[in-house]
Order: sequence, then C-alpha cells, then structure tokens
Amino acid sequence: MADIEKTIHTKENTICIFGTGDFGRSLGYKLLQVGYNVVFGSRSQDSTPLLPKGVEIMDYGEAAQRSSIIVLAIHREHYYFLTNLSHILNGKVLVDVSNNQKVNQYPESNAQFLAQLVPNAKVVKAFNTVSAWSLQSGLLDASRQVFVCGDDSNSKRLVMDVACRLGLTPLDQGSLLVAGELENYALHLFPMWRLPFFISIGLTAFFFFYCLITDVIYTSIKEGKDYSFLIAVSITNRVFPIVSLTLLALVYLPGIIAAFVQLYRGTKYRRFPHWLDRWMLCRKQLGLIALGYAFLHAIYTLIIPIRVYVRWWHNNYLISQVRENKTYEELNTTLAWYSDIYMSLGILGFGLLILLGITSLPSVSNAVNWREFHFVQSKLGHVTLLFCTAHTLIYGWNYFFDIHYYAWCLPPAGTLSLIIPCTVLVLKFFLITPCIDRKLTKIRQGWERSPKHRK
Amino acid sequence: MADIEKTIHTKENTICIFGTGDFGRSLGYKLLQVGYNVVFGSRSQDSTPLLPKGVEIMDYGEAAQRSSIIVLAIHREHYYFLTNLSHILNGKVLVDVSNNQKVNQYPESNAQFLAQLVPNAKVVKAFNTVSAWSLQSGLLDASRQVFVCGDDSNSKRLVMDVACRLGLTPLDQGSLLVAGELENYALHLFPMWRLPFFISIGLTAFFFFYCLITDVIYTSIKEGKDYSFLIAVSITNRVFPIVSLTLLALVYLPGIIAAFVQLYRGTKYRRFPHWLDRWMLCRKQLGLIALGYAFLHAIYTLIIPIRVYVRWWHNNYLISQVRENKTYEELNTTLAWYSDIYMSLGILGFGLLILLGITSLPSVSNAVNWREFHFVQSKLGHVTLLFCTAHTLIYGWNYFFDIHYYAWCLPPAGTLSLIIPCTVLVLKFFLITPCIDRKLTKIRQGWERSPKHRK
Amino acid sequence: MADIEKTIHTKENTICIFGTGDFGRSLGYKLLQVGYNVVFGSRSQDSTPLLPKGVEIMDYGEAAQRSSIIVLAIHREHYYFLTNLSHILNGKVLVDVSNNQKVNQYPESNAQFLAQLVPNAKVVKAFNTVSAWSLQSGLLDASRQVFVCGDDSNSKRLVMDVACRLGLTPLDQGSLLVAGELENYALHLFPMWRLPFFISIGLTAFFFFYCLITDVIYTSIKEGKDYSFLIAVSITNRVFPIVSLTLLALVYLPGIIAAFVQLYRGTKYRRFPHWLDRWMLCRKQLGLIALGYAFLHAIYTLIIPIRVYVRWWHNNYLISQVRENKTYEELNTTLAWYSDIYMSLGILGFGLLILLGITSLPSVSNAVNWREFHFVQSKLGHVTLLFCTAHTLIYGWNYFFDIHYYAWCLPPAGTLSLIIPCTVLVLKFFLITPCIDRKLTKIRQGWERSPKHRK
Repeated sequence: MADIEKTIHTKENTICIFGTGDFGRSLGYKLLQVGYNVVFGSRSQDSTPLLPKGVEIMDYGEAAQRSSIIVLAIHREHYYFLTNLSHILNGKVLVDVSNNQKVNQYPESNAQFLAQLVPNAKVVKAFNTVSAWSLQSGLLDASRQVFVCGDDSNSKRLVMDVACRLGLTPLDQGSLLVAGELENYALHLFPMWRLPFFISIGLTAFFFFYCLITDVIYTSIKEGKDYSFLIAVSITNRVFPIVSLTLLALVYLPGIIAAFVQLYRGTKYRRFPHWLDRWMLCRKQLGLIALGYAFLHAIYTLIIPIRVYVRWWHNNYLISQVRENKTYEELNTTLAWYSDIYMSLGILGFGLLILLGITSLPSVSNAVNWREFHFVQSKLGHVTLLFCTAHTLIYGWNYFFDIHYYAWCLPPAGTLSLIIPCTVLVLKFFLITPCIDRKLTKIRQGWERSPKHRK
Repeated sequence: MADIEKTIHTKENTICIFGTGDFGRSLGYKLLQVGYNVVFGSRSQDSTPLLPKGVEIMDYGEAAQRSSIIVLAIHREHYYFLTNLSHILNGKVLVDVSNNQKVNQYPESNAQFLAQLVPNAKVVKAFNTVSAWSLQSGLLDASRQVFVCGDDSNSKRLVMDVACRLGLTPLDQGSLLVAGELENYALHLFPMWRLPFFISIGLTAFFFFYCLITDVIYTSIKEGKDYSFLIAVSITNRVFPIVSLTLLALVYLPGIIAAFVQLYRGTKYRRFPHWLDRWMLCRKQLGLIALGYAFLHAIYTLIIPIRVYVRWWHNNYLISQVRENKTYEELNTTLAWYSDIYMSLGILGFGLLILLGITSLPSVSNAVNWREFHFVQSKLGHVTLLFCTAHTLIYGWNYFFDIHYYAWCLPPAGTLSLIIPCTVLVLKFFLITPCIDRKLTKIRQGWERSPKHRK
Repeated sequence: MADIEKTIHTKENTICIFGTGDFGRSLGYKLLQVGYNVVFGSRSQDSTPLLPKGVEIMDYGEAAQRSSIIVLAIHREHYYFLTNLSHILNGKVLVDVSNNQKVNQYPESNAQFLAQLVPNAKVVKAFNTVSAWSLQSGLLDASRQVFVCGDDSNSKRLVMDVACRLGLTPLDQGSLLVAGELENYALHLFPMWRLPFFISIGLTAFFFFYCLITDVIYTSIKEGKDYSFLIAVSITNRVFPIVSLTLLALVYLPGIIAAFVQLYRGTKYRRFPHWLDRWMLCRKQLGLIALGYAFLHAIYTLIIPIRVYVRWWHNNYLISQVRENKTYEELNTTLAWYSDIYMSLGILGFGLLILLGITSLPSVSNAVNWREFHFVQSKLGHVTLLFCTAHTLIYGWNYFFDIHYYAWCLPPAGTLSLIIPCTVLVLKFFLITPCIDRKLTKIRQGWERSPKHRK
C-alpha cells in the first residue's frame, strides 16, 4: 500500500497543462484544489500573477516530462510546435480541450488533427463542453457532463478519473471518430429542438393567417366593421389551442406509423426510414412545446372575463335585454352541460399534460423504471390526447361541421385542427384491438413472418 | 504502468455475453463503444448481420474462457445447459440480467437459481432494469440506475465498474437475497403510489356521492327541479378541494402520531407499528396528489365566470334587480373582506404547496442539506396546511355549522373535510408548546425514560 | 488478480467506527450492506441489540488496528482520549464526521482540532452533511452529496471510494482548511437565499405601505369613506407585480454594471468589487423569487371577476346605466387593443419567466451545454424583462405619468416600479449596439487596453 501511495504522489498525480489562457488557468486552479500537482508549459516562463498559487511554470518540453497527462489548452492553430516535442510526447496522454468558432470549421476534428501531428501520443478529446468560468467559480450551473472520446481506452480511463475527481460526470462517447461531433456539440444551440420549433412556428403562422382570414377579414367585410382588435387575444387564443392539439397528435403519430410499418413488414429487425427515426427522436420536444401552447391557451381563456371587449359586449347585451323587457329566462341545461363538460375535459387534459411534462424532467424520468416510463408517456399520453380532442370536439360540436359558419367555404380553423388527432386516435383504437395487438406484441418480442433476411 | 495497461487489455477488458437476443446485442454494442472487447457465446456460431461489427462469436465454452465476466442474456428456462460448463465457469463472475413475466413467478429468484446451478461461479444480479432499446438508442430517458446485488463484493465491484463505464449509475443493493426484489422491481408500476392512489380514489368517490346527495338529489327533490347539470363542474369543484385538504392533512398526521408514540414510550429506540411506517413512507406521494387536486381546484374555480350556468344566473339576477327597481346598494365590506381573505389564503396556500412540490423533485431535494429539507417539508408544510385549513374555514364559516344548510341532517361536505386538518393542527400546536417540545427533542437526541430494553 | 482480491478482503475492506451512537450504527449498517467488514470501537464492549448483526465490537485500540480507515462517530468533546492511541493511529485515515450545534462554535474546525491532537494520522472531513436517519432508511431524499476535504489526497480518495460504494456522490472540496466551512454547511439554512429574501421582503414592505398611503389612506380621506377592504386583494395584487418586476430587473442589472466596469477598466482581469460579486451570485435566487411573485400576481388577477367587491361594483354600474337610460354604446377599440395587448404581453412574459425557472432546475441545467444555458438565461431573460416592462408600461400608460392621479404628489407605485427595469433595458440597448458590443467581446476574449498590470 505504501508503494502505491508513493506512485500516486509522483507522475500519476501530476498534470501538465500547455497554455496559460483562461481555460488553462481555471483548470489548473481546480486541479490544485482537488489535490493534483500542476505544471504549466508555456513559451515564456514569466510567472503571471493570474496563475494559481502553487503551480510551476516551465518550458513545454520540461513540463511534458513531468506528467503522463498533458492538457492542451491552446488553439488548434498553434498545434504545429508539438511536432518538435514528439519524442517527449511519445506514449503520453494528450487531452484536446479545444473548440472551434463554427460548426465543421475544419475538414477533420481538432483532436484527429492532433493525432496526425503526434501519432505516437494517445489523444483524448475531453472537457471541451466545460467553460473556464464555471470551472473557476465552482458554480457548475450548466452541464457537469464531460464527454470523452479517444482510441485508447486506458488513456480515456485516466482522463475520466481526473474528471471524476473534479466532481464532473465523464461520459465515454467512443473512439476519436466522434471528436468532431463533440467539438460541434459545444457550439450547439438546442439541435433537438430545431425541428419541433420550426414545425410549431410554421403551424402557428399558418393557423394565424387562416383565422385572420376567416374571423377578422371575412367578418369585417361582411359586417362592414373593423374587427382587427380581435387579433391580440381572440385570434391568438384560437391559434394556440389548435397548434397545441396538433403538436400533441404529432407526438403520437410516429409511434402509430412505426407500428403499421412493423405489421406490414412482419418484423422489427429492419430500420425505420430516416424521417421516421428523426421524428421519433423529437417527440419529447414536440410534447413540451404542446404543453407550452396549452399553458398559454389556459391563461388566455381565464382572462376572458376581464377583457375590455368582453365586458363591453356583456354590458350591452344586458342593457339591451332590459330595454327589450326580456324577463326571466329558463336555463338551457343542455348548453350548461355542454359548456361544463368541455371545460372539464380541457382542464383534465391540461392537468395530464402537465403530469407528462413533469415526468419528462431528467431527474424524474431517471427515478422511474422502464415500465413506469412507458406507462406514463404512452398510456397516459394517449388518454391526454383523447381528453384534449374530446374537449375540442365538444366545444365546436355545433359549428365545426355547420356550413353556415364557413367563411368563403373555409371551415373554422378548429375543424382543421381535429384532423390529425382524430386520425391518430382512430388508428390507435385499431391497433389495440386484441387480434392486432397480439400480432404486434409477437413482432416486438422478436417473432418474424419471414426470417430469411437475418441470414 | 505499462504492465497495468497490458493487463487491462486482456481478460479484464473483455466481456463475454451468452445469448444473441435483443438485450445481448444492445449491451454488446454499447460495451464495444466504450472500449471493451466483446465475445458472444451462442449455440450456433453463424454471425448474424444484427450483431455489432467487431465482436467475436463462438461456442459457450470457448467464449467463457475469454473473459472473467460473463453476462447471461438468456431466459431462465435455458439456464440448465450451464451445468455442463461448470468447470469453465469456476470462479467467474456470472451476471444475471434476466427478468420474469410476473411478480414472484418462481419460488426463488433467477439469480439464486443460477447460483445453485453453478455453485462455484460468483453470481451478480445487475442490469435487469435497463432496457435493450434505451441501451442501443443511447437515449437513456428512463432510469440510468443499475441495481446490483451479489454475495461476493469484488465481483459486484467489477460489474459496477462496467456499469460506470457505460455511463450508468450502479447502486449496490446488498447480497443475492435481494435479487428477487430487483427482479420484481422491473415489473413494478409505481408501487409507492399505489396506497396513496387508492386512498385518493376512495376519498374522491366518497365525497362525490356525498355531495351528490346533499347538493343535487336533496335540492332536486326539495325544489322539484333537475340540478344534475351541476355535476360536471360545481360538484367536482367541491370534491377536489376537500380531497386535497384531507390528503394534505394525512401527510402530517403520521408524524404527529409518531411523536405521541415516542412521548408515550419515552424512547425513540423501538420500531413504530408497521402501518405507521408504511404511512410515513408514502407522505411524499400523498402530498403530490394533494397538489394535483389543489391545482384542479384552482383552475375549476377560475373558470367560474365563463360557465354558461353562472352567466345565466348572473344575468337573470341583474335583470330581476332592475325590474324590481332596486337602486344603488351599499357594499357589504364585511363580506368583501371575507371573500378577499379566504381567496388570499387559498392562493398563498396553493403557492406554498407548489413550492413543496418543487422541492420534492429529486434534483432539487438532492441540492439541499438535511436541515433545509426538513425546514421546507416540515415547517413550511405545516404553514401550508394552516393556510389551506383557514381558507376552507373562512370560506364556509357562515354555513358549515348552520343547521339550516344541513341536508337530511348531513352537514355540508366541507364541514367533514375540516375534521382531520383541524385535529392535526391542534395536536401540532400542543406538540410545539415549549415543555412538550423540550421533552420530544430530548427523546429524539437519544434520551430514554427507562433504558432497560437496550441491554 | 487473485492477489488483489485477497488484499481487498482484509484491511482495505474493513472499516472501523469509533462510537456506537445513532450515526455510527447507521453508517455501520449501511457499510455492512455494501460488503464491508465493520468493527466498532467502544468504551464498553457490551454488544447492544441496536448494533447491526454481523459487526464486531472491541476496545478502541484493538478496533483501530483492524482497519486503515477509522470513522470517528463521537462528539468533539470526547476527542481527547485519541491522544493515548496516537501510536496505533499513526498513518491511519481518521474520518471526522462531526457537526457542531452552532456556526463557528469553536475557534478551529473539529477536523483541524483532531489533526492537531493526532498529528501523525491523516484526517479527512466527510459525511457530516449526511443524516443518520437517511442512511438507515435508505431514503436519500435529501442530499446525496458528500463533501470531502483533507490534506492528504490519497486518504481523501479512499474515503471518496467508500462514499461511492455507499451510493453517495463525493465531492472533493480541497484541503483541511475548508473543514470549518463544511461543518458550518450542515447548519446552513439557505444561505444563498438570505440576501434575495431580505431584498424582496424589504421591497414588499416598502411598496405595501406606499400603496396603502396612496390608494387607501389618501382615497379614504378624500372621499370620506373606508377603503380598507381593498388591502386583502387589491393592494396585494398591486404590490406583487411591482416587486416581481423590480426583482427581475435586479437580476439583469449586475451583469450590465459588470459590463460597464469592464469597458471602463479595459480589461476583464481584475476582480469586481465584492458587492457586485455577491450580487451576481444571487441572481438565480432573485429570479426565482420574481417568478413566485409573478405567479401570485397572475392568480390574484384571474380571481378578479369572482371577488365580491368587483361583482358588487359591476352590478351597481350596470343598474345605474339602465336607470340613466343609457343605450347601446360603441366599443372603444383603442381601449380594447390596449387591454388585450398589455394582457398578452403579461401572459407571454409570465410564460417566458416560467421557462427560465424550469431551465434553472438542477437536472435541466445539467443537461444543456454552456452556450444553451447562456442563451436561455441571458438572451431569453432580457426578452422576458422587456415583455414584463412593456406590460406594466402599457397598463399604466394613461395614468402613471398623469399628475392628476398623484396622491399628495406621490406618483402611483407602478411608476416607481418602472425606474429600474427601464434603466436596465436602456443600458442593455446601449451595450448591444455594434461598436460597444465589439469592444466588450474583445475584452471578454482576453484583450486588454493596457496590459501592464499583468506583469
């Protein structure tokens, strides 16, 4: 044991950092804190007051000899000098932490470029998603994840151990081939959200102009009055629920298409078409955007009674009733039932949607087992869609399908919004009929109609 | 160092998988990715195109000799052939990843069965809660936790290291005796939620029928009119807050009972009765369901002004006022105070309840220390209960206790809902009186009235 | 390999615990569970029935010899006896788990005191934030983090390995100098929240009394009527949004001050003044409190139509309209636009604020990269502030700046609330003008106007 301790205190416990820029200094500071010895390699060995106390600074070659792990905190453009050190770097672990300014800036990744420059060193890509600021301030509010890749698994392991000791979470991503991906990752801005975002923007724009035509322009022309004041809330609150329902249906549509593809092919052992794969990977994001729209719809609905327009309309209605000597009127209980039921369905659907959103929080979904996750996201999800569709259907029952409400032959926007959800629900009902369900389960457990392709 | 590296590159870095089914292939693919060598053991050594590139496939015996860790990705029913390999499996780590179709399907767990079949191997149960799909797609949306158990702690450690390198979180659960529990875990569907769920369903049903009798049936009979249209919203919105308040009180009742038990026994060193333990373990779930009901109550309340029934009632009221030539009426400021205060209390209570819900999210509760967690969940929790109880009490002050509002001698449902919360609050006030509190603190710090039982 | 296994089974796998109190027993129970051998050192070697089965109990000296790690689960006051054992404790890892009753109770930390008492032992501070109850019940609802510090990095590493095997997350905090901080940590009650909390309490109190004067006292005196019934909801709902907006502006003000400081100094390499650092560290908390107030404002606004006072006012208004024979009145579309737009802005701002709140949940912010976190918290954050300020500005456009609405020369509270947000927005617009932005970016990438101070 004593021997092991001695070893750890020498080379294994020393880390060399090339470059005294922001990132190098912050990393050095943090490494010192958790008990490593840190040596800096630099062109000029003037100890700047910004370097953490307790480190040594020397020329590149000397520094490299002190440690088996060398962190390159320098820009890719300055990598060329390393070729002169190749005899010293032989067999060392070179940690490439660099990022670029743009996605795919160079033909090969910085780490692969480095591996070509110093072929005898073991290059590991790591730490490029960690910011200098968060290292130094200790406030790791953003990601604690350190993506690591490299061709030599022992070198990766050594680097992952360093990350662990720094209180970070290393994640092995495979060979150096994925380094380009990791370098792009740091430049990413919600890549998984891009497609769902554009889909929702597109849907919002489409339905906004559709409602503008049917509800504002058509009515203004017909009645010869300016109804543009409806845009800010009334039209918005018509567009939001429509987009929300459509997005929610788009969450469950790919799963149904996938089931039909599997039923048709009679096997699960063939890849889905690329577009279906991509669609399935962004279901969570589609669902969360649907929740956002539903939330806005809920609040826009709740402010109805305090809107100036609504109060004006209501007051005028009452005054005109009084002036026309209207008397006590029986309650239309059917209408009362209608209104209460579609509101109840909407509230329950919204509540379930929030539940789905909460279970998709990383810390919650990490705490459930696979069966529970599937139960919530699939079973409860379809029930949510059912509730929200029923909410819309009952709300518009009397005028969605009545030709008198059609403006220039255009059905109300709500009618359009029902197409995808109803399709999804009908197909789902078909899929859960016992005989189809049995077949699908068999396929998903590995059964194949004609297993020839596996040969 | 060089020697260590060499060692790692051989047996220690090779993992053998028996079985080429979905799970075996996915695990192999992932192991390859993080730098292991993978050999598959199989009956037929035809390399199927579905196996990841870079693995070797050979017969069971040969494959087993290549690694000290063997993952059994086969069904329990096929374990028998392992007895023929027992001389090769001698001293090896056998990882049982199997699950059953039903809870407690066999008298002993699969892992224990395996340990009996191959007594000289070291059986470790692990990975059974990880799904093949999530391994392969890399989308570990569901649990990253890997529960590990086994009788040999070194073998467990080796398996936990593998899990770590796969980016998973291994959790040591103890000896092989708990394997049955782990196998059942994968089949679990929110076991901690079952009791709270049934309690809330029961309460909801009870109060729904109670309100149906007192508010709909009684009124319909008395006034000879059909009031069934009240069911969808009015009755629902009476039941939800009642159930919410009751559940919230049930969160804090067991803690108070426990305090009284400790005071009575004069020691904390005796186990609570089983039902109390079980109750205390589901407090978090009870509280979250209470939050759900409170949320629904809030929205149901906010939609009041846009309900058809309410607008009808209000319009008729106004028209009748006008026709009866009613004039300007002074504001009843007491009533205004009443209504504003119970609403304020309700809103603040709801806000605190949401705060409690947020702090019970795993990632939030992991970031606070014990004292902070206790402060929020206990102190703030009791304040929340106080606010919500006061909200209900002030709301119903004028009619909860007035015999004229009793239908067939049945008090309003709200009166019943106050029983448990008020009991909890009164007992809590008793417990925090200085002299009782001092005694309880002493007991909880280890003091005993008659320490004889510790001998 | 066989040799390594043997070693692990002896000293390395045995942990000695001094003290058989609550914490010692719970830790022993848990250590046993994950496969360690546990020996207890105690004054009296009577095996109490409370000790977990399978442990050994012996006198201090004997127990200490059985393991290289000794956990001291005893109070600091009893440390003195350890001096008698110093020959046995020589070179051992002593784990100090103690906490005090008060912050900074002793001149030096318990761990440093211990290191002075037994200078040849390697003292590691750890586990002091973990509670006995949570260890034993296995319900690690509160923090899984184990802060570790010590002067010997190998000893720290050994202790961190133990924590890992217990399923906890060890975090190396540096040398024994920080032990005092760790001991205080366990006594902390939301230290990061203290300043933001007092700021919001102060603002709330100030604006409450301000509104009380301008809205209740002034009006009551002027009109000779008692308007105190406005306090519970009307005044509250005036104070909440004002405090929320001010807090939100205070989140973004320090960043702007910092930018101006950097522009003025022409370098980023000098520390900010202490107050600015402290302010920047509590931005997240300020933002979350702002969200809380905004949430309360939203609900207080939505209950407006069901308040007794509002219904009374509205009914009287209508009746008086009828009695005065008012007829159909044209809709003031400008007013309709106004009301709809400020509500829309408020809803969208509130939605964005919730989004900001969700991304500040630890598990969410851990899953985004640095660029994404910055995009959400900075870019979206400023848009949120813009929306909320515009919401307030349009809401009060007609009377915030009209001297007729001023009570005793005091402007409406809303006017005051706009000062900080408007300042922040104006300065931010200045900072994002291309020429200033270019200069700032240069400074933040390391450029310096006069780099002399780095020498």
